[in-house]
Amino acid sequence: METALKGSCIIGQSGGPTSVINASAYGVIRTALDNENITRVFGAAHGIKGVLGDQLYDMGEEDARELELLMNTPSSELGSCRYKMADPDVDDTDYKRILEIFKKYNVRYFFYNGGNDSMDTCNKISAFMAKSGWECRVMGVPKTIDNDLYNTDHCPGFGSAAKYIATSCAEIYKDARVYDTGMVCIVEIMGRHAGWLAAAASLAGIAGCAPDLIYLPETDFDMDKFIENVRRVYEENGNCLVAVSEGIHYADGRFVSEAKTSATDGFGHAQLGGLAAHLAAVVKERMGVKVRGIELSLLQRCAAHNASAVDVEEAFMAGKVAVESAVAGETGKMVAFQRRYEDGQYKCDCVLAPLDSVANYEKKVPAEWITPDGTNVTQDFIDYALPLIQGQPERPLENGLPRYARLKKVLAK
Amino acid sequence: METALKGSCIIGQSGGPTSVINASAYGVIRTALDNENITRVFGAAHGIKGVLGDQLYDMGEEDARELELLMNTPSSELGSCRYKMADPDVDDTDYKRILEIFKKYNVRYFFYNGGNDSMDTCNKISAFMAKSGWECRVMGVPKTIDNDLYNTDHCPGFGSAAKYIATSCAEIYKDARVYDTGMVCIVEIMGRHAGWLAAAASLAGIAGCAPDLIYLPETDFDMDKFIENVRRVYEENGNCLVAVSEGIHYADGRFVSEAKTSATDGFGHAQLGGLAAHLAAVVKERMGVKVRGIELSLLQRCAAHNASAVDVEEAFMAGKVAVESAVAGETGKMVAFQRRYEDGQYKCDCVLAPLDSVANYEKKVPAEWITPDGTNVTQDFIDYALPLIQGQPERPLENGLPRYARLKKVLAK
Repeated sequence: METALKGSCIIGQSGGPTSVINASAYGVIRTALDNENITRVFGAAHGIKGVLGDQLYDMGEEDARELELLMNTPSSELGSCRYKMADPDVDDTDYKRILEIFKKYNVRYFFYNGGNDSMDTCNKISAFMAKSGWECRVMGVPKTIDNDLYNTDHCPGFGSAAKYIATSCAEIYKDARVYDTGMVCIVEIMGRHAGWLAAAASLAGIAGCAPDLIYLPETDFDMDKFIENVRRVYEENGNCLVAVSEGIHYADGRFVSEAKTSATDGFGHAQLGGLAAHLAAVVKERMGVKVRGIELSLLQRCAAHNASAVDVEEAFMAGKVAVESAVAGETGKMVAFQRRYEDGQYKCDCVLAPLDSVANYEKKVPAEWITPDGTNVTQDFIDYALPLIQGQPERPLENGLPRYARLKKVLAK
Repeated sequence: METALKGSCIIGQSGGPTSVINASAYGVIRTALDNENITRVFGAAHGIKGVLGDQLYDMGEEDARELELLMNTPSSELGSCRYKMADPDVDDTDYKRILEIFKKYNVRYFFYNGGNDSMDTCNKISAFMAKSGWECRVMGVPKTIDNDLYNTDHCPGFGSAAKYIATSCAEIYKDARVYDTGMVCIVEIMGRHAGWLAAAASLAGIAGCAPDLIYLPETDFDMDKFIENVRRVYEENGNCLVAVSEGIHYADGRFVSEAKTSATDGFGHAQLGGLAAHLAAVVKERMGVKVRGIELSLLQRCAAHNASAVDVEEAFMAGKVAVESAVAGETGKMVAFQRRYEDGQYKCDCVLAPLDSVANYEKKVPAEWITPDGTNVTQDFIDYALPLIQGQPERPLENGLPRYARLKKVLAK
């Protein structure tokens, strides 16, 4: 393998933020700044849009201590984007512009941190650079709370989101049972096509606070059966805690959250709330009991204050390995995780997966990890997810609140 | 003062739960179990309803270690109630029943942990016992995230809720600014009549993430001015983060959350979402920008995982002082907090306030702590609230999730 490619690098962040995406960025930035083959380290403002717009922050201008605080700073500190690259065979304008920028700054290493779409972007850029004869090593760094990337055991960001969801569900469980009058409580969790996050609600069972029912998008939703199940649990326990994935859908494919005016649920009026509010209203109408809908909303993907130390460390490692692998000659790969157990202890190794084997696929919760009636997950899921939510990261506070990184963001000249 | 009243005690929890109400219960239970004048310690199931229904848990049957875990267990572990006692001059049935139970178990000490209404309950029971000639010392232990009790600097439960709100707003701020396309984000915070909790969103400013606008129920809300302010901030910054109290109301007193069909906001259809969803819809309709409404919901009162150590310790102290004061001869009082500064360091002392000076009043955010345009709070509020959110409590975890107290709850015979 070639080993002495000298030049600058760019790190970009893409897609929805997570609690640990900045830990991956720090893994790239720190490792790159310390590597003698990498001459300058740039952070792209708002992902690939920053490359196209020549908005690159010079990471060498930042204080080391502030950069280190990226380990505990949620969201995408460099800014993110949701920009779908055209097929270069149809329109190569963007690719030519990227090549121009790469040449301008002598960019020989490109690291892109994101989910499915970002791996697709990575893959297209990689192919275009190869075709153009501009030697540039392109590496994907995985990121998504959705945990739906192929060819990796799990994704950085998922563990912290899972921990927040499980902790919050445990707290809601405690709160919702405080009166001797019953209540149905419905918690809406992110996950449009894959149910990993909603499944994580089951981890609240460790604290003795498992949801009674969990609905994932991997199975078809039936409103009548749902009400039947809620009623049964409520009659048995006097309470019912339900975790639902935002992506649950009827057998015909319509999202429950978008099919609110259908005859299926008997509601015909416009509605501003989300899925939780909708299901709460149906339960209220059909069962006449006290009910509350709670949407975890953005907090599940940005609650760095309750991050998993395992997740933070793995996110950093993914960025670090991306740089090390690229410098060692790798290109067109995504850093992936492989799990093993050493004396029963969970360990995570980094391996490389070809970008085109990851891009544009969605990994779902396996059918055998979902109970036959589709209202919960099995112990297999818990065994899988439990190691990922472990540990409390060191978290600097200032006056009782998190001390986030404060970057200068000096634009490269 | 009389000092040798021997007998049992009851601790009851009432009203909405908090992250630290169990720390107060533990303050009472531990101190009472260790006191030689207190012969047995009972926890009332669901507050005063447990007394009326003779459902008392024998706290002497619990493991000391599990009891200690109450320090970090959110919600009301003994169960709560919202039970309004009748005026004893009109109907004394409940009071006679309470006297009967007090006699049955030789209850000479009654501790009630709650907000305004609970102090009222306490006060009425205290008066009835005095009239009946049954010597029983009755003490109120304050509790409310709303921070609206009179005659106390602040209330146990507020600090932890404030910390959760500030931390969550900081995280939402980071998340909501990640794209280069703007967004208006509206966070709905508890507080029907007093704006202490919504004001706490301002503390996110410590992390550099202050909401742009904060609306409290202490001032009248005007939808047109609201839109004007949001528009101005959005045009200046490309983003706008708004914190609103659920209790904001129009000048005529109607809650904004309940006046959704009025001409004021131009919406005429039924709606299932809450205030945040409603305001988000109005912003969307009038400004046509991307907008998201987030309701912090139950989590702000039960998120013990992000509790304030100061709050946990003060909550414990309030329970402890209640027992010590009662044993020393006090009755008909609520334990209150008095703030002082020692070499610039915040300190909190317990003092006693007559129950009838606390019951049924609501303390609001002072007008002078609200900016003249009613869209934010002043530095005075921040100086007041900041000491209350300090410190991370020791928090036992089990497999990455909080280890809550597991009480046996053995019913007294």
